[in-house]
Amino acid sequence: MNSFPNQTSTPQEVRELFRTGEIVRPTTGLCDNYLQANLVILPEKLAFNFLLFCQRNPKPCPVLDVTDVGSSEPKIVAPGADLRTDLPLYRIFKNGELVEEVTDLLNYWQDDFVAFLLGCSFSFEAPMIAANLPVRHIEEGRNVPMYITNIPCEPAENFAGNLVVSMRPLTPIQAIQAVEITSKFSNAHGAPIHFGSPETIGISDINQPDFGDTVSINDDEVPVFWACGVTPQVAIRNSGVEFAITHSPGHMFITDIKAN
Amino acid sequence: MNSFPNQTSTPQEVRELFRTGEIVRPTTGLCDNYLQANLVILPEKLAFNFLLFCQRNPKPCPVLDVTDVGSSEPKIVAPGADLRTDLPLYRIFKNGELVEEVTDLLNYWQDDFVAFLLGCSFSFEAPMIAANLPVRHIEEGRNVPMYITNIPCEPAENFAGNLVVSMRPLTPIQAIQAVEITSKFSNAHGAPIHFGSPETIGISDINQPDFGDTVSINDDEVPVFWACGVTPQVAIRNSGVEFAITHSPGHMFITDIKAN
Repeated sequence: MNSFPNQTSTPQEVRELFRTGEIVRPTTGLCDNYLQANLVILPEKLAFNFLLFCQRNPKPCPVLDVTDVGSSEPKIVAPGADLRTDLPLYRIFKNGELVEEVTDLLNYWQDDFVAFLLGCSFSFEAPMIAANLPVRHIEEGRNVPMYITNIPCEPAENFAGNLVVSMRPLTPIQAIQAVEITSKFSNAHGAPIHFGSPETIGISDINQPDFGDTVSINDDEVPVFWACGVTPQVAIRNSGVEFAITHSPGHMFITDIKAN
Repeated sequence: MNSFPNQTSTPQEVRELFRTGEIVRPTTGLCDNYLQANLVILPEKLAFNFLLFCQRNPKPCPVLDVTDVGSSEPKIVAPGADLRTDLPLYRIFKNGELVEEVTDLLNYWQDDFVAFLLGCSFSFEAPMIAANLPVRHIEEGRNVPMYITNIPCEPAENFAGNLVVSMRPLTPIQAIQAVEITSKFSNAHGAPIHFGSPETIGISDINQPDFGDTVSINDDEVPVFWACGVTPQVAIRNSGVEFAITHSPGHMFITDIKAN
C-alpha cells in the first residue's frame, strides 16, 4: 500500500502518471477522500437521452460534471485535466459492441463529443477504512467485483438496461455502519441497495462477477451491494448506439473534489 | 380558505378545474402536501442544453419529470394528466420574448416538444403552516413575491442568467425553524439562499417584485429568500431561443406526488 501511487497521492500526480502512460491499474485505494468518477463519452446527438437516463436513475448515475460540446476538460471537478488522457484505461464501443480497450483517446476524440462524469463508490472506501470497516478488494489487491442484477433501470429512449452493482463483504454490524457512512455520499451512489442473498437481485453466482475480480467472503459475512456507475455501460451496450467511449470498469477518473 | 378548490382538494380535482377552464388562479394554498411543479416546454433540439442547465443549477431547477419527446403526459409524477391543459395559465415565448399568456396549449403543441417539470417552493408551505409559521402571501390571498437577484447561474450554452428567488417574511426564530423544515425538501428548492438585506443579493426595492405580488413585512420580520423555479424563464428570455412555453409565475402544475 505504500508504493507510489498510493492513498496519499494527489489527484494531479496520479492523473499525470496515467497521462504519460507510465502505469495502467484500477484506481481503488488511490487518493483517499477525493471523489472518483465514471466516464461516458457520446456524440452530442445522443447527449440529451443519456443525461435524461442519468436524471431518471440518480442512484447508479449521479452526475458530477458534463463537458461543453467538443471539450475534454472537466471544468467543474478538475479544471486543467484532460479526459482524453487522464484515465488509466478506456473502452471503445461501436454499435453497442465493445471493440477495443485503449490507454488514451488521442486518436478517437471528435468535435461533437460530450463527456459525462458520474460518481463512483471508490469515493467512500477511504471513509469506510477510517471507520475500521474492511474493504476486501483493497485488502486483496484486486478490482471490486461488479454484477449485472435483474433490477431494471428507468429507460430514456434507447438507453435501457438493468442495474449494475458493486459488492463488499461485511459482517451484519459492519454492514449497518457502512449504511450509516455511505448514505452521506449521495454523489457516490449513497447507501447500499441490497445485502444478503445474491439470488434476490438476480445474481446466480457470487464468484463470477460480470466485471472486476472475485474477492473472499468470510463465513460471518454477507455480501453488501451498492449501485454502480458501470450501469450506463450496460445501457450503452443495449442501446446499440453507433459510438460511445467509457472508462474501463474500476479504472476511474480521479477528480480534485474532496468527497466529504 | 374553505371555498373549493382549497388546501384539502385533490390534485386530480384541481387539474380537472384547470383543464375545463373553469378557474384561473395561482396554485399557492391548494392541495396541501402535494408537490407542485414549474413547467418548461422546449423543442427537442434545445432539450439537452436545458437539462444540462438544470443539472448545473439544481437549487433553482430540481428536475421532477421529463416527458418523452412529443408526449404531454408526465408519466412519473402524474400519469394520465395532460400538460397542455392541466395548468391554470401558460406563457408563450418567441425569440426570448414573452408574446402571450394562454389558459391551454391545444393550439401550440408540436410533435418535437419536450416538457420539463421542476420542483416548486409551494410544496413546503403546508409543512410551514403546520409548524405555525406564517406564509404571508397565503394569509393575504396573493401570489408569492419573486425577484431577479444578482447571483449568476452556471450557464449551459445559450441558457444563462441570474437566480430568481421567492420571498417569505419571518421573524428570526421563525426563519431558523423554516430553514430546518425546508432543508428536507431538496426537490422543492430546499433551504433558503439568503435572509435579511435584499441589497446583498441585488434586490433594490423589496416592494417591487419582478414577478408575483407584494406582501406585508412586519417590523419584527426579515425577508427570507428561496431559490425559485422561475429562474429558467429568465434564462429562456436571455437565450433568445426561438420558441419556449412555461407556466405563468405562481400558476403551477400540481403533481400526484406527496411532498413528504
